[in-house]
Amino acid sequence: MSLTVAVSGASGYAGGEVLRLLLSHPEVEIGAITAHSNAGERLGALQPHLHALADRILQETTAEVLAGHDVVFLALPHGTSGAIAAELELLSPGTLVIDAGADHRLQSPQAWERFYGSDHAGTWPYGLPELPGQRAEIAGASRIAVPGCYPTTCLLALAPGFSAGVLEPDDVVIVAATGTSGAGKSLKPHLLGSEIMGSMSPYGVGGGHRHTPEIEQGLTQAAGEPVTVSFTPTLAPMPRGILATATARLKPGVDPTEVRAAWERAYGEERFVHLLPEGQWPTTQSVLGSNHVVMQLAVDAHAGRVIITAVLDNLTKGTAGGAIQSMNLALGLAEETGLTQQGIAP
Amino acid sequence: MSLTVAVSGASGYAGGEVLRLLLSHPEVEIGAITAHSNAGERLGALQPHLHALADRILQETTAEVLAGHDVVFLALPHGTSGAIAAELELLSPGTLVIDAGADHRLQSPQAWERFYGSDHAGTWPYGLPELPGQRAEIAGASRIAVPGCYPTTCLLALAPGFSAGVLEPDDVVIVAATGTSGAGKSLKPHLLGSEIMGSMSPYGVGGGHRHTPEIEQGLTQAAGEPVTVSFTPTLAPMPRGILATATARLKPGVDPTEVRAAWERAYGEERFVHLLPEGQWPTTQSVLGSNHVVMQLAVDAHAGRVIITAVLDNLTKGTAGGAIQSMNLALGLAEETGLTQQGIAP
Amino acid sequence: MSLTVAVSGASGYAGGEVLRLLLSHPEVEIGAITAHSNAGERLGALQPHLHALADRILQETTAEVLAGHDVVFLALPHGTSGAIAAELELLSPGTLVIDAGADHRLQSPQAWERFYGSDHAGTWPYGLPELPGQRAEIAGASRIAVPGCYPTTCLLALAPGFSAGVLEPDDVVIVAATGTSGAGKSLKPHLLGSEIMGSMSPYGVGGGHRHTPEIEQGLTQAAGEPVTVSFTPTLAPMPRGILATATARLKPGVDPTEVRAAWERAYGEERFVHLLPEGQWPTTQSVLGSNHVVMQLAVDAHAGRVIITAVLDNLTKGTAGGAIQSMNLALGLAEETGLTQQGIAP
Amino acid sequence: MSLTVAVSGASGYAGGEVLRLLLSHPEVEIGAITAHSNAGERLGALQPHLHALADRILQETTAEVLAGHDVVFLALPHGTSGAIAAELELLSPGTLVIDAGADHRLQSPQAWERFYGSDHAGTWPYGLPELPGQRAEIAGASRIAVPGCYPTTCLLALAPGFSAGVLEPDDVVIVAATGTSGAGKSLKPHLLGSEIMGSMSPYGVGGGHRHTPEIEQGLTQAAGEPVTVSFTPTLAPMPRGILATATARLKPGVDPTEVRAAWERAYGEERFVHLLPEGQWPTTQSVLGSNHVVMQLAVDAHAGRVIITAVLDNLTKGTAGGAIQSMNLALGLAEETGLTQQGIAP
Repeated sequence: MSLTVAVSGASGYAGGEVLRLLLSHPEVEIGAITAHSNAGERLGALQPHLHALADRILQETTAEVLAGHDVVFLALPHGTSGAIAAELELLSPGTLVIDAGADHRLQSPQAWERFYGSDHAGTWPYGLPELPGQRAEIAGASRIAVPGCYPTTCLLALAPGFSAGVLEPDDVVIVAATGTSGAGKSLKPHLLGSEIMGSMSPYGVGGGHRHTPEIEQGLTQAAGEPVTVSFTPTLAPMPRGILATATARLKPGVDPTEVRAAWERAYGEERFVHLLPEGQWPTTQSVLGSNHVVMQLAVDAHAGRVIITAVLDNLTKGTAGGAIQSMNLALGLAEETGLTQQGIAP
Repeated sequence: MSLTVAVSGASGYAGGEVLRLLLSHPEVEIGAITAHSNAGERLGALQPHLHALADRILQETTAEVLAGHDVVFLALPHGTSGAIAAELELLSPGTLVIDAGADHRLQSPQAWERFYGSDHAGTWPYGLPELPGQRAEIAGASRIAVPGCYPTTCLLALAPGFSAGVLEPDDVVIVAATGTSGAGKSLKPHLLGSEIMGSMSPYGVGGGHRHTPEIEQGLTQAAGEPVTVSFTPTLAPMPRGILATATARLKPGVDPTEVRAAWERAYGEERFVHLLPEGQWPTTQSVLGSNHVVMQLAVDAHAGRVIITAVLDNLTKGTAGGAIQSMNLALGLAEETGLTQQGIAP
Repeated sequence: MSLTVAVSGASGYAGGEVLRLLLSHPEVEIGAITAHSNAGERLGALQPHLHALADRILQETTAEVLAGHDVVFLALPHGTSGAIAAELELLSPGTLVIDAGADHRLQSPQAWERFYGSDHAGTWPYGLPELPGQRAEIAGASRIAVPGCYPTTCLLALAPGFSAGVLEPDDVVIVAATGTSGAGKSLKPHLLGSEIMGSMSPYGVGGGHRHTPEIEQGLTQAAGEPVTVSFTPTLAPMPRGILATATARLKPGVDPTEVRAAWERAYGEERFVHLLPEGQWPTTQSVLGSNHVVMQLAVDAHAGRVIITAVLDNLTKGTAGGAIQSMNLALGLAEETGLTQQGIAP
Repeated sequence: MSLTVAVSGASGYAGGEVLRLLLSHPEVEIGAITAHSNAGERLGALQPHLHALADRILQETTAEVLAGHDVVFLALPHGTSGAIAAELELLSPGTLVIDAGADHRLQSPQAWERFYGSDHAGTWPYGLPELPGQRAEIAGASRIAVPGCYPTTCLLALAPGFSAGVLEPDDVVIVAATGTSGAGKSLKPHLLGSEIMGSMSPYGVGGGHRHTPEIEQGLTQAAGEPVTVSFTPTLAPMPRGILATATARLKPGVDPTEVRAAWERAYGEERFVHLLPEGQWPTTQSVLGSNHVVMQLAVDAHAGRVIITAVLDNLTKGTAGGAIQSMNLALGLAEETGLTQQGIAP
């Protein structure tokens, strides 16, 4: 099989990562590569790490350019993929469209409008195969919404406990640190190297982060009852990686010694999600550039809480790797095709 | 006034920072500088940033060498300052002894033994002047226990809410990131630059961190009722700085719009602790090398919690700066003497 | 004495560092603080590390606002300080004006025009007191050109050898690494934290860097014959600091064992410039935030070259600290007043 | 084809990188994985980024364990591979042995003894295929010496100029920055994260670095006359990557406009070595984790020198990737097999 794949938003970090991974995918031929303000430029000037594509010229991001491929990845600013997806539907109905942006993740139009301030584009199958029942939804889909990088981390960290019914739904606290690529290639003063190196800072504190409703949506589904989350994101001095520390109270009567088993059951057969042996802690370095997620959990009997710490690479499993994993599933390929890269360490 | 001051543990990070700050203190003359395995070496080879003391030779850390100074700073491994303090008591009864280590912080011998595994050395006045009533305890003291760096951050973040009675005592969650100097100059593989740069990781998850009982001790005192804390420390790729994200549930009936006032009252007159204007977030860079603490708070009505994010420099306000601030108080000097350095940024 | 001092360009990195150091200067009262596009904003929002000035409001950078102070620091984009200096001359003739920008450094209008592309503003006394004869030129001056950060490093590294006549003038090679603050607070993609962390890169290779003529000017003066330099600057993943590796051939007949003596003579009495004991290498960390310069040299008999490695903080000794050192000299204060901060390490 | 491959030194950085790359090699089955002091441990505890091998147990590094594989990689401390290679010769004569250490790189026993202080183990074919004539030497070899990471960078940077006869052989100056993994997983104080982050420093200045004779050996071969090099290595705050700035004088009469052509000819057909379009500068980030080398050159007519800046990943092309590239050549596989990973950026 040789699939033709187009990538839009190729001058950004998410688009660049999609291309990096596709170059290692044995069934893929890279077709159109598009951008907005950088159209007409050499990819080598914008993504100098993609040596194999250095001489490619970026095309304009239009439905016409993207049409006719087997797969199209949309790595666009939020609020913009709905329109182009609608055009593609008409022009190129057989194309698998994978939205790496936020537009098609939320089920609730109200939540979308409140957090993103525009009309809701719709809800597509949610591309997180390791959630219960999700593989079936992705297999054969023609549209996939790639989860956010924080929600991928937090849902994988907490879903087993909610599915198993051992966690209280009304007192989830998550504090997460992300590398700067999570903020994109935006020219903002606080993202300058001079400001970032040697410094940590919170942002979006107090419930305002756009990933909060997406995390609650997924946990509510796992729990079968409404889950509320206090989510605080922080910015860490590293280019990539997320470390999420997620805690929830144990339900009364839960035996602390049996908690770990819920996660072991959930991920024992998963290729990309790993519960570490007890006594070892995850590091973001161990997943850098890979599609892997590593976690550890501890029950704090004194505080009555379970604490899960989970790491992934926000651009790989958190965006482009997760997207390709779902692409594989949708097309009937082995789920790990093209995703065999290990972490880069040190 | 010219005070003679001796510093033990001068080859380590805490001892080096005490010396750095003392060099800017107008009332201090630096006397003996001591170390353990590095005794006999040139300070310039071990602390090359202390240009003014480059040619000083480290002496052996003994009570005899330290005796006779107006002030002695102990920056020693935990479990070792009790014995030397006892000797100093006899040899040099008029000396103010300031323990930058953990040995004299905890009030409960049981907690000490459980978390440190040795006999409890005793409890000294707790050197955190910004806690209610604490200035009076420090003024005129002849022994001071310097708080741990995490407890300093977490107590300053949360104490105003507990003192004001607006926070529930049984559901405090703190996730904190520290720079690597918090782990000392230890030759451990996970502290190598190759492992640290670009990587975040948790450690001591699940209640085991030695700073947990110290945080609970201080919050319990502020609340007037037992406070339990879930505390997760993480290691960030930066040499200095702590960012603590501390959250607690609001007590029923508390008006969310009145919460901020408790912190404004607590710190409005403080020189070193600052609540930022709303909309601005703290960065560890803004306090680097300074004795300042910067914080912001948000009430997350959706989750029913208040979230405080606070930053300080673990070696300055978190150790050596806090120690000198208490020294000033104990000796009747203006509290900020020698501590006027601003943050170093970028 | 209490001097009133105004600082323009206070929202940038150089201006911020001038303010940071002035806050520790015992003879200074900070007057007007000005900026261009940020006029009207709270300093605390732009320079959150300057806690003592957080509530100051930035004024517009005009000669009227700056006039009437004892000292004015210009920390402006190159090409802009000439005009405002001329206005100040009329409005405020007694004011000491210190230009932290490039406009008044070069003696050759041709070199200025070639490298900066605008009219030459003139030549002011060059504020590098450690060069032979320079202290006399600065003492009592009413105008001072602050040297560039690279030239400060390279001149201090090489001048002793040229003054002593042991180095060939036609084969100097310098490769230097700077932290990102050397590039200012510019919103350029290659300065984003995501691009900078974990990455080194050259820039301005092949003679084009604007600091090259300034380095050659100073070395030519020291040598008494024309010196040509091959200078390659590189960008390192750190916010501050310069490490210059400077090499030159030894003149025929020079005894390699006598080379070191030239540097020892030059800096033996200097308070801020240090030749390390043999076997110890300089680190940029050892000078962070301080006005110190540390260097080491080696004679490579095999290659027939002497190699000097020198470090300083580009914002402190390389800009603001050097500026204040010259201010002190010009005003008859002790040269080190307000510059006693040690390096911040780790 | 399925080759069995054993890797010794698997707990170190070089051994870990060999394993990482072999996991992406389609013709390889990983056999014995061995270590010295870590024998008996789980690989997942030592190299947590190698998810696919997490449950493998490290065996003891002995010739018996390594024998019987098609290929053996030696990633051992220098001075130790000679003995084990000799044993393998007897036990397992058909095995291709690839020494990632220094023992078999130098042709001169005198140089070996002077720089390494032990008996010379011998000289093996030098595994740098991009040097003129080198591919033929590697093809079919049963022993390969993997070049050092600095020599790989410096030879690729300068060899085209020496081969083309445009560079003077007696005045080469190289200043290079390496990431900390170049120093291995050694527990030395100056390699701690606290000391490294935010800091640059030189080391081995003045001709003493062990890579100097290896660089001179390769350049002398390219030039056909003795080349002497002044080489200064520096340590940069990043885990991986080398940036070398290499300069040499142009021979009299060389037309500066024709210099670039020598490099274009040398690397025009190379898959892994790239001369950037003029105006673009290499960054170490662009080659991170990949087998690529990127360079740029400039002729500085003013100083009469050509300046080449070149980057590579010290662990990939500089060690393990180069080793696998040579393995492929030796075994008659396509040279790029298993080496198709692009750089990881940002």
